Amino acid sequence: MSDVSDWWRTSIIDMEPGRIELRGHPIQDLIGNVSFAEMIWLMVRGDRPTPAQARLFEAALVSAVDHGPQAPSIAAARMAVTCGLPLNNAMASAVNMLGDVHGGAGEQAVEMYTHIADWDGNIDSALDAWVAAQGKIIPGFGHRFHTPVDPRAPRLMHLVREATQEGACNGKFAEIGEAVEASLARRKGRPIPMNIDGATAVIYAELGFAAPLARGLFCLSRSVGILSHAWEQTEQGGRNKGPTPPSYRWTFDPPRKTDETA
Amino acid sequence: MSDVSDWWRTSIIDMEPGRIELRGHPIQDLIGNVSFAEMIWLMVRGDRPTPAQARLFEAALVSAVDHGPQAPSIAAARMAVTCGLPLNNAMASAVNMLGDVHGGAGEQAVEMYTHIADWDGNIDSALDAWVAAQGKIIPGFGHRFHTPVDPRAPRLMHLVREATQEGACNGKFAEIGEAVEASLARRKGRPIPMNIDGATAVIYAELGFAAPLARGLFCLSRSVGILSHAWEQTEQGGRNKGPTPPSYRWTFDPPRKTDETA
Amino acid sequence: MSDVSDWWRTSIIDMEPGRIELRGHPIQDLIGNVSFAEMIWLMVRGDRPTPAQARLFEAALVSAVDHGPQAPSIAAARMAVTCGLPLNNAMASAVNMLGDVHGGAGEQAVEMYTHIADWDGNIDSALDAWVAAQGKIIPGFGHRFHTPVDPRAPRLMHLVREATQEGACNGKFAEIGEAVEASLARRKGRPIPMNIDGATAVIYAELGFAAPLARGLFCLSRSVGILSHAWEQTEQGGRNKGPTPPSYRWTFDPPRKTDETA
Amino acid sequence: MSDVSDWWRTSIIDMEPGRIELRGHPIQDLIGNVSFAEMIWLMVRGDRPTPAQARLFEAALVSAVDHGPQAPSIAAARMAVTCGLPLNNAMASAVNMLGDVHGGAGEQAVEMYTHIADWDGNIDSALDAWVAAQGKIIPGFGHRFHTPVDPRAPRLMHLVREATQEGACNGKFAEIGEAVEASLARRKGRPIPMNIDGATAVIYAELGFAAPLARGLFCLSRSVGILSHAWEQTEQGGRNKGPTPPSYRWTFDPPRKTDETA
Repeated sequence: MSDVSDWWRTSIIDMEPGRIELRGHPIQDLIGNVSFAEMIWLMVRGDRPTPAQARLFEAALVSAVDHGPQAPSIAAARMAVTCGLPLNNAMASAVNMLGDVHGGAGEQAVEMYTHIADWDGNIDSALDAWVAAQGKIIPGFGHRFHTPVDPRAPRLMHLVREATQEGACNGKFAEIGEAVEASLARRKGRPIPMNIDGATAVIYAELGFAAPLARGLFCLSRSVGILSHAWEQTEQGGRNKGPTPPSYRWTFDPPRKTDETA
Repeated sequence: MSDVSDWWRTSIIDMEPGRIELRGHPIQDLIGNVSFAEMIWLMVRGDRPTPAQARLFEAALVSAVDHGPQAPSIAAARMAVTCGLPLNNAMASAVNMLGDVHGGAGEQAVEMYTHIADWDGNIDSALDAWVAAQGKIIPGFGHRFHTPVDPRAPRLMHLVREATQEGACNGKFAEIGEAVEASLARRKGRPIPMNIDGATAVIYAELGFAAPLARGLFCLSRSVGILSHAWEQTEQGGRNKGPTPPSYRWTFDPPRKTDETA
Repeated sequence: MSDVSDWWRTSIIDMEPGRIELRGHPIQDLIGNVSFAEMIWLMVRGDRPTPAQARLFEAALVSAVDHGPQAPSIAAARMAVTCGLPLNNAMASAVNMLGDVHGGAGEQAVEMYTHIADWDGNIDSALDAWVAAQGKIIPGFGHRFHTPVDPRAPRLMHLVREATQEGACNGKFAEIGEAVEASLARRKGRPIPMNIDGATAVIYAELGFAAPLARGLFCLSRSVGILSHAWEQTEQGGRNKGPTPPSYRWTFDPPRKTDETA
Repeated sequence: MSDVSDWWRTSIIDMEPGRIELRGHPIQDLIGNVSFAEMIWLMVRGDRPTPAQARLFEAALVSAVDHGPQAPSIAAARMAVTCGLPLNNAMASAVNMLGDVHGGAGEQAVEMYTHIADWDGNIDSALDAWVAAQGKIIPGFGHRFHTPVDPRAPRLMHLVREATQEGACNGKFAEIGEAVEASLARRKGRPIPMNIDGATAVIYAELGFAAPLARGLFCLSRSVGILSHAWEQTEQGGRNKGPTPPSYRWTFDPPRKTDETA
């Protein structure tokens, strides 16, 4: 029996009939005594945040819940419901859309900030090295829609500064984020402001979360909007909702003539 | 353009460059000012909870985050990570496990409580009618593992009573839940205590959530444990983790001889 | 060890180092000797089709591979790729769209045909009973786009008649399908022709597949189109492709004023 | 309207009411006239295979359908069914398990073969360069279970040689695969035989499929086993099947004491 038990091992949960302990805390002591955000922190990391850390963490979770029905994740949730799926499957399909491009910028930004923090040289050379290795997209900066400014970023950065004053974090990654923003403006000759991914990445990095958790926590946050839209669509009804009204047709590009062998 | 815009319509989010409003509130006013649980409530329903409602809602969200690596959802998340998937896809596969049997009991319990609330007759006849229509499993009561008592349920019910005294809800569904528990004990001759699904269903019904949202909110809550286990497995490493150690083999049931036609 | 082995048991596959047997056949004897369609039949059912059965089965699999980028499943696959997902995750999200409404009509049609086959009375009363129990949508008949005729249905029905003459099946469900079509035309006063789901359901019922497998096999068939579109989108490129061009905006329905409590 | 139509564009399918053309062929001309494997080829690539190419392609599709209930994908499908999911969602969760580690070896092997084909130097230096860039796992060679030999690989390679004689391909990637096998044996001092991923990668490379399609086609092939196991589990019944019998418990690793801040 021991090899089977060892195959599945965890520090997160201990259990026997009538007893559940999460990260060493009896579940009944947590219920009603910790906020949902504190519970997320405890579960993911094992320790507990200070009140100031919890507030900053909560702000990041609140900020990313939704970006509207044109976001592929939200659209997928709404489409799924009209295909006859219940909320759980709609949520799964929607979260499954949060790949490197749609959901990965926060993780990539934490990695970039960490790269810069570890870099022995100035911000410009750090960014040059990042671009050389990772390509020209600077994760967490600029927004194809929210110009000139993504309204979530300055609010989140304001809260980071407050939290730094309260000792929740040391402000190092906020400075790095601002240095990136300044460098980009210099290099491009126009502002490329920090967006929500750049700002939440500052928060997650300040609070000591590993880069992949920036994506995992984004998935959790965006699940709120996903659930909300899936439920709204459930109430609206509709059947087999495609991306555009049925009267529209796609463009058919006739195949180039090829030599078919059979 | 209007038909395309009308194809996608929502009361949840309004947006233009530099402006995001969720349920009528500018996002920057929400960030740092509402808790994550309050944000979930606002997004899903459109209104905002009282402080006492928010506390009760938060308790339900906290209570259901995890049930260990043998729960199919948690196991799926851990397996996915070892198959080379990042956290987002692992979370999606895991949430996709929360079907009627694994994730539906809360929704079914809200439906049952509502059926009882609308029933013109006593609790026993209400349950008889439920069983006749839905089958013998009473959702939200009894637990195959947590005997005699699921430690989460009494704690949650205690908080419902507190919240009722604070005016967060009226206690009607708590009474129904307790009546079901008493009726089941009488009918079976032994206690079939309310479990976590029965207790969170009381809370969601007390707070006025539609039954399908009991499942949707459970998915959100369980996503926390899913993320935590997926991340722990990421740090543990491992490749292609199947359900049991590789040295085990399944039982092969030889096919009955059939007349093969080719 | 035996209880763990017994937990996972199957008649499908037997294996030891260097040996794989599927449904009792060494894998190396199948590779190169059975068609992919025959392999699907063997795996799902355990027996092997006659050549005429295999041809009819194959026609059903071929017929349902694609319905264009406005089908939610295909759209989801294409969107997923632009979100940074590889083909496997894009395929998963797309198949996950094939719920009761988008992917369930074939399964429902097999159930309806079976209901009619078991009905003691004429076709009209059988359909009345079906509608009374299941609602007014007759699965497998009519098409919101392909009017007057879904070109796949008559071709498939022609092949069913050929196969019946060859002894691959007995034609009973083809007759039922045609009787439904005739009854609907009489009742509605206009043709409601059999569509692809109605026709593939005839085939799966004729060949003895259980109703849920009509959906499972549809998922397999549609996976071909899903893969093709996901790959085409991969080659086209694009980032975060939402349902409509970014310049479009959804319609925002301002929330009705509610009494907010906080 | 044109911008919306242009947003969705494809060479795969053209459609108007009553007409469906796939890759330029009316659907009714394909149904009953092409095999399912030929249809997959046509849909994915746009051209049609010769009979010898179709046979070789079909062998690859047949070979990878299943690897038993301990494979995470198959286990996930079976678990999903017992959680109350229908076949479509079970298939989606299972395919979603086919990440880089569980489903990516075929794609990686095609990339490695292509790297070797393009390499200006001998096989040993090509492999050294591959390992330096990609890490020490040589995709497609060795098997943790099937020792000494994966029975699928020699059978597939035999078919490649036959197909080469028939002019279906030129045998270049088969030679590369065999050269890798020989080099690994020399370098390791023991055989590291080609496995199914290495052999199907030879086939897909010989037939001119891009590397990512080796993964996509594997997903399609494995979907057959996934469906079969999901259906068998449906018939077996069971509720909330976790990875091991419920009497087993995981190993709890108590957390290291940390300085908690709250």
